[in-house]
Amino acid sequence: MKKFVYLFKEADGKNKALFGGKGANLADMTNLGMPVPQGFIITTEACNQYYRDGRMINDVITAQIRQKLDALEKMTGKKFGDVNNPLLVSVRSGARVSMPGMMDTILNLGLNDEVVVGLANLTGNERFAYDSYRRFIQMFSDVVMQQDKSKYERILDKIKTEKKVQDLTADDLKEIVKLFKDLYKKSQGEDFPQEPQTQLIEAVKAVFRSWDNDRANVYRRMHDIPYEWGTAVNVQSMVFGNMGDESGTGVAFSRNPATGENVFYGEYLMNAQGEDVVAGIRTPLPISTLEKQNPKVYKQFYDIAKKLEKHNKDMQDMEFTIENGKLYMLQTRNGKRTAKAALKIAVDLVSEKLITEKEALMMIDPKQLDALLHPQFDNAALKKAKVIAEALPASPGAACGKICFTAERAKELGGKKGKVVLVRLETSPEDIEGMAASQGILTARGGMTSHAAVVARGMGTACVAGCSDIKFAADEKSFTLGGKKYKEGDVISFDGSTGKIYDGEVKTEPAKISGEFATIMAWADKYRKLQVRTNADNPADAKNAFNFGAEGVGLCRTEHMFFDAERIPAVREMIVSTTVEERKKALAKLLPMQKKDFKGIYKAMQGKAVTIRFLDPPLHEFLPHEDAEIKTLAKEMGLTFDRLKQTVSDLHEFNPMMGHRGLRLAVTYPEIAEMQTQAVIEAAIEVSKAEGYEIVPEIMIPLSCDSKEFKYVRDIVAAKADEVIAKKGASMHYKIGTMIEIPRAAVTADEIAKSAEFFSFGTNDLTQMTYGFSRDDAAKFLSVYYSKKIFESDPFARLDQNGVGKLVKMAAELGRTTRPDIKLGICGEHGGDPSSIEFCHNIGLTYVSCSPYRVPIARLAAAQANIKNPRK
Amino acid sequence: MKKFVYLFKEADGKNKALFGGKGANLADMTNLGMPVPQGFIITTEACNQYYRDGRMINDVITAQIRQKLDALEKMTGKKFGDVNNPLLVSVRSGARVSMPGMMDTILNLGLNDEVVVGLANLTGNERFAYDSYRRFIQMFSDVVMQQDKSKYERILDKIKTEKKVQDLTADDLKEIVKLFKDLYKKSQGEDFPQEPQTQLIEAVKAVFRSWDNDRANVYRRMHDIPYEWGTAVNVQSMVFGNMGDESGTGVAFSRNPATGENVFYGEYLMNAQGEDVVAGIRTPLPISTLEKQNPKVYKQFYDIAKKLEKHNKDMQDMEFTIENGKLYMLQTRNGKRTAKAALKIAVDLVSEKLITEKEALMMIDPKQLDALLHPQFDNAALKKAKVIAEALPASPGAACGKICFTAERAKELGGKKGKVVLVRLETSPEDIEGMAASQGILTARGGMTSHAAVVARGMGTACVAGCSDIKFAADEKSFTLGGKKYKEGDVISFDGSTGKIYDGEVKTEPAKISGEFATIMAWADKYRKLQVRTNADNPADAKNAFNFGAEGVGLCRTEHMFFDAERIPAVREMIVSTTVEERKKALAKLLPMQKKDFKGIYKAMQGKAVTIRFLDPPLHEFLPHEDAEIKTLAKEMGLTFDRLKQTVSDLHEFNPMMGHRGLRLAVTYPEIAEMQTQAVIEAAIEVSKAEGYEIVPEIMIPLSCDSKEFKYVRDIVAAKADEVIAKKGASMHYKIGTMIEIPRAAVTADEIAKSAEFFSFGTNDLTQMTYGFSRDDAAKFLSVYYSKKIFESDPFARLDQNGVGKLVKMAAELGRTTRPDIKLGICGEHGGDPSSIEFCHNIGLTYVSCSPYRVPIARLAAAQANIKNPRK
Repeated sequence: MKKFVYLFKEADGKNKALFGGKGANLADMTNLGMPVPQGFIITTEACNQYYRDGRMINDVITAQIRQKLDALEKMTGKKFGDVNNPLLVSVRSGARVSMPGMMDTILNLGLNDEVVVGLANLTGNERFAYDSYRRFIQMFSDVVMQQDKSKYERILDKIKTEKKVQDLTADDLKEIVKLFKDLYKKSQGEDFPQEPQTQLIEAVKAVFRSWDNDRANVYRRMHDIPYEWGTAVNVQSMVFGNMGDESGTGVAFSRNPATGENVFYGEYLMNAQGEDVVAGIRTPLPISTLEKQNPKVYKQFYDIAKKLEKHNKDMQDMEFTIENGKLYMLQTRNGKRTAKAALKIAVDLVSEKLITEKEALMMIDPKQLDALLHPQFDNAALKKAKVIAEALPASPGAACGKICFTAERAKELGGKKGKVVLVRLETSPEDIEGMAASQGILTARGGMTSHAAVVARGMGTACVAGCSDIKFAADEKSFTLGGKKYKEGDVISFDGSTGKIYDGEVKTEPAKISGEFATIMAWADKYRKLQVRTNADNPADAKNAFNFGAEGVGLCRTEHMFFDAERIPAVREMIVSTTVEERKKALAKLLPMQKKDFKGIYKAMQGKAVTIRFLDPPLHEFLPHEDAEIKTLAKEMGLTFDRLKQTVSDLHEFNPMMGHRGLRLAVTYPEIAEMQTQAVIEAAIEVSKAEGYEIVPEIMIPLSCDSKEFKYVRDIVAAKADEVIAKKGASMHYKIGTMIEIPRAAVTADEIAKSAEFFSFGTNDLTQMTYGFSRDDAAKFLSVYYSKKIFESDPFARLDQNGVGKLVKMAAELGRTTRPDIKLGICGEHGGDPSSIEFCHNIGLTYVSCSPYRVPIARLAAAQANIKNPRK
Repeated sequence: MKKFVYLFKEADGKNKALFGGKGANLADMTNLGMPVPQGFIITTEACNQYYRDGRMINDVITAQIRQKLDALEKMTGKKFGDVNNPLLVSVRSGARVSMPGMMDTILNLGLNDEVVVGLANLTGNERFAYDSYRRFIQMFSDVVMQQDKSKYERILDKIKTEKKVQDLTADDLKEIVKLFKDLYKKSQGEDFPQEPQTQLIEAVKAVFRSWDNDRANVYRRMHDIPYEWGTAVNVQSMVFGNMGDESGTGVAFSRNPATGENVFYGEYLMNAQGEDVVAGIRTPLPISTLEKQNPKVYKQFYDIAKKLEKHNKDMQDMEFTIENGKLYMLQTRNGKRTAKAALKIAVDLVSEKLITEKEALMMIDPKQLDALLHPQFDNAALKKAKVIAEALPASPGAACGKICFTAERAKELGGKKGKVVLVRLETSPEDIEGMAASQGILTARGGMTSHAAVVARGMGTACVAGCSDIKFAADEKSFTLGGKKYKEGDVISFDGSTGKIYDGEVKTEPAKISGEFATIMAWADKYRKLQVRTNADNPADAKNAFNFGAEGVGLCRTEHMFFDAERIPAVREMIVSTTVEERKKALAKLLPMQKKDFKGIYKAMQGKAVTIRFLDPPLHEFLPHEDAEIKTLAKEMGLTFDRLKQTVSDLHEFNPMMGHRGLRLAVTYPEIAEMQTQAVIEAAIEVSKAEGYEIVPEIMIPLSCDSKEFKYVRDIVAAKADEVIAKKGASMHYKIGTMIEIPRAAVTADEIAKSAEFFSFGTNDLTQMTYGFSRDDAAKFLSVYYSKKIFESDPFARLDQNGVGKLVKMAAELGRTTRPDIKLGICGEHGGDPSSIEFCHNIGLTYVSCSPYRVPIARLAAAQANIKNPRK
């Protein structure tokens, strides 16, 4: 029979897939002889079995749970449900990777009307016993029975108000327990379960169920965690931080998770349970205080922390409880950290000889670097800015945006739509999507380990926490700070590195790569084989990317230049032309402008390769579609309304994505490709001459689907290029290649490679064509696909290796059969996504090209890919 | 050095690829000792070389032409350009397969101002000599120099009018020659070329050039003839049918090309050149007349014809000339014939033991059967119809439609847009597209071998020719016939099998398969391995296809039923539903209607397999888009305008082809798939019970792109099907499969096959997605692709084996790795295209499914595929 349940001491600390991260670490600590309250792990396989059985825990698993419970009773000498010496347990989720706050936890399980009396007698602390019982009822009702928790909160508030105290007496708590049990019965239609075995099985089910709740699903999609991993459940005997003033609980990091400094860092609360620290309701004390308060316990904890750090070769994030002066380790894990801290810790661990350079590179999540690449506050602007408050610097970065008070509103107005900051009393797991859409998060309550702080650091989003100066209006639709009233839409700025909050907008400046960041990048360059280029359409972007280490431009989209207000008249003139001569006349006006752009980009890239893609979008994109606008434009262009309207309607397409665009335009209007060729070649000749670079222009023809089609356009371009070179008396090599972004191009790549000198995979369009859905339209139905688990990740963000990737791989192989040295790149958005970069490395591409801000991410991801799977 | 030019006696009669059909047959006849005027062939390789050299005939080829010309002079004892004994030649095109009238011919080449005098002296026939010269100047100006031929015609007409005669004297012709030469000089800026060598090289160039003219390109695309085949040129010493009353020229078939009867069949004209017969200007005599006029020559020709028929194992189409009583064979080829004749000839040749059944099957072009499958006139209607004239039954079939007088107009109004008939004085090669768009062609002039007749037979289009009763108005915008005036848009009918023309519309009835057609179909079934199913959306189509031999329904599109006026209200009610309950209520109204359709189809197919595809189009297709229509509908539905407008705008898609359709609808609204499942299963159970058939319903899910996605919908369908079967207490097997019409489905077919029991390749959509262009939008730019030879055939008509076919093959192989017995079919339009059917056979598909009228075509094509490449 399959083993679904393991005691901590039976489990393998290396096998996180089976035991989850928390379980594996508890096993590890047990085996290292550390003071861990004992317990057992119900494996991730049991979770998957639960779902396969239709959300039921089958008899085999139930029996194994009983069996391990017996063993636990023997180990602890306590008994589940025993009045004289009761065993109480916590039930916690523990997935393969940490998903903080996403799933459910139940504490104090095993209490009932009789056991609570026994516990009071045993501890001589009636207040503690009833406080534990009321917490348990509340958690069980909320987490296991999914009742409305605010009703319980309201009872608690009511009693507190009546008694006019914060700290309730044992009698108060007894009354509360009674009221809670009444409410439970009213809500549930039955009494609060008194049988501890029943409580346990229901709690385990609840944890399994929470693997599939909405916020867990969103979190997994954001972090590429497969649904099929499942979660383990950890059942651990309870120790009590709320047993009186000799008890307490806390969390600590072995190094500073915000800066990476090698100093012990954390918070604790005496006479409290873990939830009180994490929820951020009471403001905890810094860990340094413990050194004074209880030096023995502090020393023991400190030693354990250092030992764990050495054992796990990484900074540790630990939870502990002190029960009547005795230390217990509840959890350890590699700690989440800011990007800045991640870099410093990695570099420090190498200096400390704990890890190698390669291991250092592997321990940094490339996506996290994003946080360091975005603008910081401009120093000059900062000096002039008005500081209105200062609070905890919970997650670094500069944030500036319009105030939103709810996550929903932030989702509506933020993200790609605009810059918003989320200002909240405190955040909760439901807020995760709104947090992701914000530039930064500002909370009035909670500390450095509050929900807002932990999640913001994980996301690389700026966060200032615990700003108690913020006074919210009763309707929570405005607040006052620094004597001023702020309402939705007002702009504030704050700095997650300093904790300072500023009135209004503060100017920002681009990020720089220096210090540990530069060290890590240098190591990455040393170990990677894949080149990293950038997508840049103008000299400014090119310069930015160059500074971030781009080794060339992989995609310069020329149409972006066409949309410029100064140029679009000539573009439109070209479109309404009815003869080749008219069209050439209009194109002649565009020539000097295009040339100027290209010269700027060549200069910015200082002689590195620049791949210029020829005109791609359908021509109707350059014309208005509403009658009123057509009327205005017709007047401007000296045309009749009917004439222009006719052009617009002639250009109308049923499926523009699959219409007259890309090289199809060059087939119909070769003169457009000729003008662009002239601009590219002349620009390259002139910059080469002026700067002494040896530029080899790369001309990229978009949207090929056929070898003859590509060759037709290639020949036109080559003829024009040769003509321009000859006319200028220059000697210049150039390359002509194509985008592979249509399935047919991928499957006929061997034929296309006969005349194409390079391929660049345009995986945005290739994904659309391969899946047969357009990005614009798919958003509507893909949300259903996510909620039904048909798709687990967004194929536009993460390359679909099963389908689209198969075509990319096939095309790469076919291309190389014809032309073994063919240059292969990728220039879709996937070029900046680490998992897709790993795929590109594995199939032997030459380079990836991504947006300037993703260049350092790609450099690191490429190094990681080569460390995992070295390329010969 | 490569040999580009061969004497007839040097060439290989089997190698049509190199020598072209005409050249190979001339070589064959020469080697069989038949009286062929000698000459030489410039190969198809020379043609390709001409294009590679930038439309120039290079020195190597020129030298070889001179050399063979010398040899020809020695063989004939005549000399090129010699006044006393001149050699004159014809220069004709000759591609691998016959392309009648598509390319150019020049006769009488070698004449100049001096040679014409010598020819007159030599033949003692000055009139003949100058008639030949004026013809040569006229042809050379038109064909080689591409001058406007009407100017020459006008001179001829003017002289004829002045002289008030039809037959001109030698002096008249001398004057015409002078006027022609003046016109040539005026048009060309130089004298008419007197050097025969120059004339020859220019003529050869003109023939090569004509390979690339518009009408040849259109013809090739219609007949799938690759551009790269090129044409050969045949230079043959002239014999003269216009040397007087002992001379003549004609064309004849060894059997009747219209009916297939084994009777000698043809026409000739005395004192004429070939062009006079083919052009249909003078009405020729039947070949039987020759038997009386010149029994010796007739006997000789008849014997040669029978010998050639035996040699080539097929009916022959021959051209001959009689020069002063001596017979010369100018050409033979396997004759074009009507579909009816093709079947009779093939069956007869088997009876005559000349060929085997397999050879008989191979000699019929499956596409030609189309002509026999379309409606014939209804006998009862025919009796009541008013015959207004009778003329030559030039190509069989019933035609009925609105009159058009120009090919352009026929193209505009005909084809898919409506039924038209083209009525012309005579047709010319420029008319080919208009002819293709017409139901039939009616000409006032020309015989059974006129351009109209030959082309119509080739196309399988009805034609009645030479109806001299038709009197055209001066503006050619109306005609009178049978005392009535007919103008554009008036309807007439005619029967190409009887030559009868009827006033107005005559009712038609479906075709039947009997006689030789039935014999051939029986043979086809005996030799084919591929099953043939039909695409049918209603009982009538299914019944029709069943009668044509369909072995099942491969595609029943359920949405066609949804558009029915009676049903669309319920469909719309379903679409505007905002809750599942509302939607189910609307679907419940559709259920009985769908069920009724399915029952009808099951009955029509008498227990054969029926594959029913679930709802495919995006929902917005069922709603109006114009405000006025929305207003009306809103009122009908009892909704506000704003509410309905909102639904329409919510459903709007940027690229509907890549939008919310196919199984994506079932993912979002499983209740639609459930309703359809219920209808399918209940219908199958009820018909099985009533008729005693063992129906195994096949449910086809459209547009899968992913295995999880497919499985999600499959599971919903299976659950519903099982529920219905259980509820009815029936026992019924069913199959659930998917269309493979998205590239990703093809590349992940191994995964999809885990839960799909069959695949059907939807090659219409697969072609669109694989090429990345939508059919609706591509029409605009594909015309440029054809004219630039980037594409040679329409990938929607003929499966693109290089690209789309590669995906189909891959999917078939992947599918079989998972499920070795997976049923594989194709249901795109390609299912009825012979070359695509051959491909489907070769990659081992189980069946093809095509429109009912294509079922017999597919049966024959499948047999041919298996004869070429037998499947084990």
